[in-house]
Amino acid sequence: MASEKKLVEAITSMGEDFAQWYTDVVKKAELCDYASVKGCMVIKPAGYALWENIQRELDKRFKDTGVENVYMPMFIPEGLLQKEKDHVEGFAPEVAWVTHGGLEELQERMCVRPTSETLFCDFYARDIHSYRDLPKVYNQWCSVVRWEKTTRPFLRSREFLWQEGHTAHATAEEAQERTEQMLNVYADFCEEVLAIPVIRGQKTDKEKFAGAEATYTIEALMHDGKALQSGTSHNFGDGFAKAFEIQYAAKDNSLKYVHQTSWGMSTRIIGAIIMVHGDDSGLVLPPMIAPTQVMVVPIQQKKEGVLEKAFGIRDALSGFRVKVDDSDKSPGWKFSESEMRGIPVRVEIGPKDIAQNQAVLVRRDNHEKLVVSLDQIAEKVGELLGQIQKDMLKRARAHRDAHTYEAVDFEAFTKTVEEKPGFVKAMWCGSRECEDKIKEVTGATSRCMPFAQEELSKTCVCCGKPAAKMVYWGRAY
Amino acid sequence: MASEKKLVEAITSMGEDFAQWYTDVVKKAELCDYASVKGCMVIKPAGYALWENIQRELDKRFKDTGVENVYMPMFIPEGLLQKEKDHVEGFAPEVAWVTHGGLEELQERMCVRPTSETLFCDFYARDIHSYRDLPKVYNQWCSVVRWEKTTRPFLRSREFLWQEGHTAHATAEEAQERTEQMLNVYADFCEEVLAIPVIRGQKTDKEKFAGAEATYTIEALMHDGKALQSGTSHNFGDGFAKAFEIQYAAKDNSLKYVHQTSWGMSTRIIGAIIMVHGDDSGLVLPPMIAPTQVMVVPIQQKKEGVLEKAFGIRDALSGFRVKVDDSDKSPGWKFSESEMRGIPVRVEIGPKDIAQNQAVLVRRDNHEKLVVSLDQIAEKVGELLGQIQKDMLKRARAHRDAHTYEAVDFEAFTKTVEEKPGFVKAMWCGSRECEDKIKEVTGATSRCMPFAQEELSKTCVCCGKPAAKMVYWGRAY
Repeated sequence: MASEKKLVEAITSMGEDFAQWYTDVVKKAELCDYASVKGCMVIKPAGYALWENIQRELDKRFKDTGVENVYMPMFIPEGLLQKEKDHVEGFAPEVAWVTHGGLEELQERMCVRPTSETLFCDFYARDIHSYRDLPKVYNQWCSVVRWEKTTRPFLRSREFLWQEGHTAHATAEEAQERTEQMLNVYADFCEEVLAIPVIRGQKTDKEKFAGAEATYTIEALMHDGKALQSGTSHNFGDGFAKAFEIQYAAKDNSLKYVHQTSWGMSTRIIGAIIMVHGDDSGLVLPPMIAPTQVMVVPIQQKKEGVLEKAFGIRDALSGFRVKVDDSDKSPGWKFSESEMRGIPVRVEIGPKDIAQNQAVLVRRDNHEKLVVSLDQIAEKVGELLGQIQKDMLKRARAHRDAHTYEAVDFEAFTKTVEEKPGFVKAMWCGSRECEDKIKEVTGATSRCMPFAQEELSKTCVCCGKPAAKMVYWGRAY
Repeated sequence: MASEKKLVEAITSMGEDFAQWYTDVVKKAELCDYASVKGCMVIKPAGYALWENIQRELDKRFKDTGVENVYMPMFIPEGLLQKEKDHVEGFAPEVAWVTHGGLEELQERMCVRPTSETLFCDFYARDIHSYRDLPKVYNQWCSVVRWEKTTRPFLRSREFLWQEGHTAHATAEEAQERTEQMLNVYADFCEEVLAIPVIRGQKTDKEKFAGAEATYTIEALMHDGKALQSGTSHNFGDGFAKAFEIQYAAKDNSLKYVHQTSWGMSTRIIGAIIMVHGDDSGLVLPPMIAPTQVMVVPIQQKKEGVLEKAFGIRDALSGFRVKVDDSDKSPGWKFSESEMRGIPVRVEIGPKDIAQNQAVLVRRDNHEKLVVSLDQIAEKVGELLGQIQKDMLKRARAHRDAHTYEAVDFEAFTKTVEEKPGFVKAMWCGSRECEDKIKEVTGATSRCMPFAQEELSKTCVCCGKPAAKMVYWGRAY
């Protein structure tokens, strides 16, 4: 038992030190590792397989809405980055600059893309001529670079993987529709696939994207009560189109500016999966996204017929992503490892089970055991995976709701933020001053103005003037 | 008819100017476009969809051999790049250098990866401890940068997309086996999926990868008789392991160096698809890789029932990648466009066809027409796509064989290279001097020493000394 104990002890408990727990899980579940370039990460097979599943599911949903994938260059000439004023102010301080190509100094330095609005705009300006060329609904899967000072695996790294959609439309209405549509794609994906409930809403002007007219966001609550922005969708209006001269000839031959959007989700979402579902035994993966959904662990595998039966179960479960752990480790060690990696269902099969034509199914999410007949194992595992997926969303939603508070005056607000980690719903007058003050005093930021507005009181929680919006506030990653 | 003529005239004929034909096809089939950064490209939806299909097919084949995907950072610190002597000499002259992160100058500059051997080695040195950690069979899909002076879409660009596999093994034998295995994966993929026949063989020392002990290659012949290196697989022996100190404890507890391989295929292969199969009407895509396999073109689409029937055919063909062109262009224009884009089968359906419960199928590869009953259309289209795939490989193989020559003396060799574009098989003594001379005099390079060796004569085609190997020679992209 010494070795099993060691494996579990290898991770700090959540209650003791959540940040350390996170780092331990990332490391022990072998999701990623540090790289020789500070602030960058090596995404290991277990982490990358998660990203591949996320990509597959998201990409399918994108394409169902008419999205086409493309690839833009990774470099942006300095002059191009500077074309849109707000945008360059937002990103220039944190880009990596290329100054030399081979042995020669470049005439104009280039940055590695921190995001690709400028590249898409430059392309659209050349590619869009007539209303027949619209809409353009393009997306790319790539990596981007932001030279952050403080970094954490998945949550904030100098290079990260993401997708960025960039669209151009004939009308403002169509652009707004696409902005909201993609936010809903993200939200539905989080809830249906990742079992992560999210609040859908709009960012305040202070928190919106550099160059956007409006930014929409989905906000999730982590186990420690901190918020994580999990996906964003921006409506640019015609601001970029004017800066980059992206015009089209309308049906009546008049020249009009296009209306644009962009939207992105990144490997950051893997941090959310870890922090929403994980526990003191490690990762807990929703079945729909788990690279391995079922791990078959043979007990007394050297006894005749045990391994054979284990592989027979694997074959019976071929409709799922299933593996057999036939390594020479002890069953206890294998249990711990399978738990650490978050595999949704473990199947235990030993000589006694075989004698009774049965196997033991163990749920990763709540440790429940279920004895099933081998004749029904595929059916039962299918049901169980479906149930786990549902229960995980339900549990995460219950946790989020139990950690969502309301405050109508500043004292209660401050006290809630301080003592009860979670979301705090409160009314806001709409001024930047109150937003700044709330952040300064409490460390909480406005997460979003939810689409589902409520009137908690008539006045701003901070200044007492008439309220304009209800806002979700919280400390955030 | 004026407009149809214009579309076809938009591309130069192959016979007139092959290079211009290539550029025209890339542009008119909307595969890619130039970017604002010189030498980089924008891969447009039609080009990227091809790459996605290539990725899906290759990735499946990789995983069937036990490959796991990962992601390494895009930056290599200068010190890391310099660890293996031959490798840095090969790549340092053509890398892009990052010198600043945000507003600060970096202490050590970094290059954008031209290839990732050094990053994988750095990681393996930290991650591999015991024989239990071996083999490592990792791959990544990413973009790389090589600051080339002369560039051409897909064939040579400053940034390109590729996959790079990097493996570490306990023994030299296992590394050699993996090197050959992956070369065969590439070769089978080219022949079975892309309908491109390839010569499998080993590169000479002169042409091998910087830092490799041995490089294996697949070489394809383009329509103009020039060769294109289409995929490579390298055996590094323990050279990188010694430079990076990648050691493992063997079962007997002795410390041993690992043996490594790497292998890659890039978006360059899209250039091969264009130049092997294309014709004067544009692109010709093998059905297995075509983003759209069937285009349904309604004739007199404004007549009652025509569009309805066209969409009915689409539904009947839902097992294929099928589209209906219901735009307001003329049928002739639609035919030309569908040909330009290389769509394997066109279905024509008009009022007369409907009256006879039939449709006309037109093959892109040889323009043959086939009238089929609507009751059997799915079955007939399936058969036709299979036949086209087979015929394209057969045709490409016949072209390659008809343009493969032999030479046993230098005069004949020189004359053949000059007058008959294609591969020339000739014996070689093995010396660098002869290889250099052949290139200087004829412009042909050694493409490979094929696995299937023949003895054409006893002496080197260049110096007349005893021959060591038969080599495929040719001018190349």
